[in-house]
Amino acid sequence: MALAVKGLEGVVAAETRLSFIDGEAGILEFVGIPIGELATHSTFEETVFLLWNVRLPSKAELSAFVSQVRANYEPPADLVKLIQAMPKDAQPMHVMRTLISALGLYDPQPNKIDSPALREKALKALACAPTILAYFDRHRRGLPMVHPDKNLGIAENFLYMLNGQRPTPTMARALDVCLILHADHGLNNSTFTARVIASTQSDIYSALTGATGSLRGPLHGGANEGVMVMLNEIPSVDAAEKHVLEKLAKKDKIMGFGHRIYKSYDPRATHLKVLAKQLAKDTGNEGLYEKSHRIEQVMENAVAAKGIYPNVDFYSATTYHCIGLKLDLFTPMFVAGRIAGWSAHIIEQLADNRLFRPDADYVGPHGVEYTPLEKR
Amino acid sequence: MALAVKGLEGVVAAETRLSFIDGEAGILEFVGIPIGELATHSTFEETVFLLWNVRLPSKAELSAFVSQVRANYEPPADLVKLIQAMPKDAQPMHVMRTLISALGLYDPQPNKIDSPALREKALKALACAPTILAYFDRHRRGLPMVHPDKNLGIAENFLYMLNGQRPTPTMARALDVCLILHADHGLNNSTFTARVIASTQSDIYSALTGATGSLRGPLHGGANEGVMVMLNEIPSVDAAEKHVLEKLAKKDKIMGFGHRIYKSYDPRATHLKVLAKQLAKDTGNEGLYEKSHRIEQVMENAVAAKGIYPNVDFYSATTYHCIGLKLDLFTPMFVAGRIAGWSAHIIEQLADNRLFRPDADYVGPHGVEYTPLEKR
Repeated sequence: MALAVKGLEGVVAAETRLSFIDGEAGILEFVGIPIGELATHSTFEETVFLLWNVRLPSKAELSAFVSQVRANYEPPADLVKLIQAMPKDAQPMHVMRTLISALGLYDPQPNKIDSPALREKALKALACAPTILAYFDRHRRGLPMVHPDKNLGIAENFLYMLNGQRPTPTMARALDVCLILHADHGLNNSTFTARVIASTQSDIYSALTGATGSLRGPLHGGANEGVMVMLNEIPSVDAAEKHVLEKLAKKDKIMGFGHRIYKSYDPRATHLKVLAKQLAKDTGNEGLYEKSHRIEQVMENAVAAKGIYPNVDFYSATTYHCIGLKLDLFTPMFVAGRIAGWSAHIIEQLADNRLFRPDADYVGPHGVEYTPLEKR
Repeated sequence: MALAVKGLEGVVAAETRLSFIDGEAGILEFVGIPIGELATHSTFEETVFLLWNVRLPSKAELSAFVSQVRANYEPPADLVKLIQAMPKDAQPMHVMRTLISALGLYDPQPNKIDSPALREKALKALACAPTILAYFDRHRRGLPMVHPDKNLGIAENFLYMLNGQRPTPTMARALDVCLILHADHGLNNSTFTARVIASTQSDIYSALTGATGSLRGPLHGGANEGVMVMLNEIPSVDAAEKHVLEKLAKKDKIMGFGHRIYKSYDPRATHLKVLAKQLAKDTGNEGLYEKSHRIEQVMENAVAAKGIYPNVDFYSATTYHCIGLKLDLFTPMFVAGRIAGWSAHIIEQLADNRLFRPDADYVGPHGVEYTPLEKR
């Protein structure tokens, strides 16, 4: 038996037409379009269409797609009862995973995996994931649910349901851009998880639920919460340098820096940095932005030569904080965006499927005798 | 970029000391002990200890472990309320996935992943998974829940909670052996899923939930239900040959035959066949066993030369049917057994972790211009 390739690093596990990453050059493209173009000109809804159809929509197609999404904002009524039966101190990522799974309970044909069925179910999950999150957050705060407003886009509607009032256009657009930037990213762990599960011909709820579980991990989507924890630990801009250098000296990981793939500036971080700066100014959080920026400068001097740069999580933290999201909603917000990519990859996997079933390198003994219990 | 290895066939993705499979020789060992020894002499509880500790227990250790398992049969009271809020027509695998996920809602420290915490949480999940399943089945039948009996082992207690009366010793032992045979099986898709998710340092509920989603797939654990559907389609023993040969002529898959790894008789099927025959006799289901056996004979003549033999799912179907399980409880029963292996692999993965993050082979265009919406 060959030696194990730990973490499958460098192993090519699937073909894709969805996103392309050049980690050396710091390039990320969705269906060939540079991420910066989408962050500047597109909307999350259009980006979802792009990923699910491997092309941009016409005006009429986009309009129809947006209508379909909005028609699916409201989750099944009985699922809302489950939310209300959940403990208020439950962690939102465990809630998201459980409720995305629970969508399968209310679908009369949850196991259909032909391409039209997958698209229909993906649309439902994508459209109601933010609602589920907002409903749970209101439930735990003891506030009445705010039902979705079909006149609003996904990002704006989410902030409306969460806060009970419409956000400023800048705020809504900032969240929209965050969703675009988080929509897909090659065979990251959660997307790979979704494809592995889908390859058994299991249902899309199973694949999305597994992916949500993966994204919670601190080595994956959970890192954005870790960044905010670090920012809270550092009392001031001036304290940042000492904090970071001490951590580096102890060989501690600095949350939000470094990436398996990127050895240069993560192109998503470029856009998030601009957003974070603007929002910090608008919301009186300049101190938080300055602290982040100072950390980046210290890290640049210390480790940029080793290819360690800010990743998507680093400026997400400041951005989400300025938008008004509580710390434990950061990773669920990532779920709301990445459902787009997961669904696209599930559709792609099943269009040319082969069951994922790697080998293991067994390193234990063989032919061991079963000693009867009375002789042990 | 290298070509994709579809399905990761032949790629060695992890080291393990848990189970060893020689597909050519038809050998399966758990921690070096041949599966036949365990099926003949061990119990499911002892097999779980073996997988979680990579050795057999002493008498005192086994006794303590069994007590711990029994003390955890009852799920959190609030989780039972969720079960009662679930739609009665929901599919049990979607229910299992959702409720294993929901265990994370009631754990005050769901994200702890040090080895003692993982073992404690795994024990809880293993111990209460059969209870959850029995409770849901009673709920959908409009029957009161039957609470677990701590004087009974896992298999016997499950049938007691399901039916409201204690099974015969033969029946209880048959289910016990089924659980042993299903406890682990190398890097099968669901186990691989569990390790991939765990590698993000996410929690054990996320990993077990994702694995449950994978197991539902018709190309994985869901196949045992497919076998029963096929058996129901064939009206008599005499009709079996024609049915199978017609399917083979159309190149249709015969459920329960063939395996990516085994090119000889699946050693689990050897034991399940003996169980199925005995139980069929005891329960007046000889016709069902004879039908299965006839299918096996036809397949042996037709395709054994190609290395296609009965797999674990084939005689599971007859066995589960004779035990009195409804068709849609077959795969959830597989979950109840495989939680043992998933948990062992999660513990093993985290003891020497590396994030799973393979590469993708991007086969689409590059540098595509973003055409503004008004020009489309």
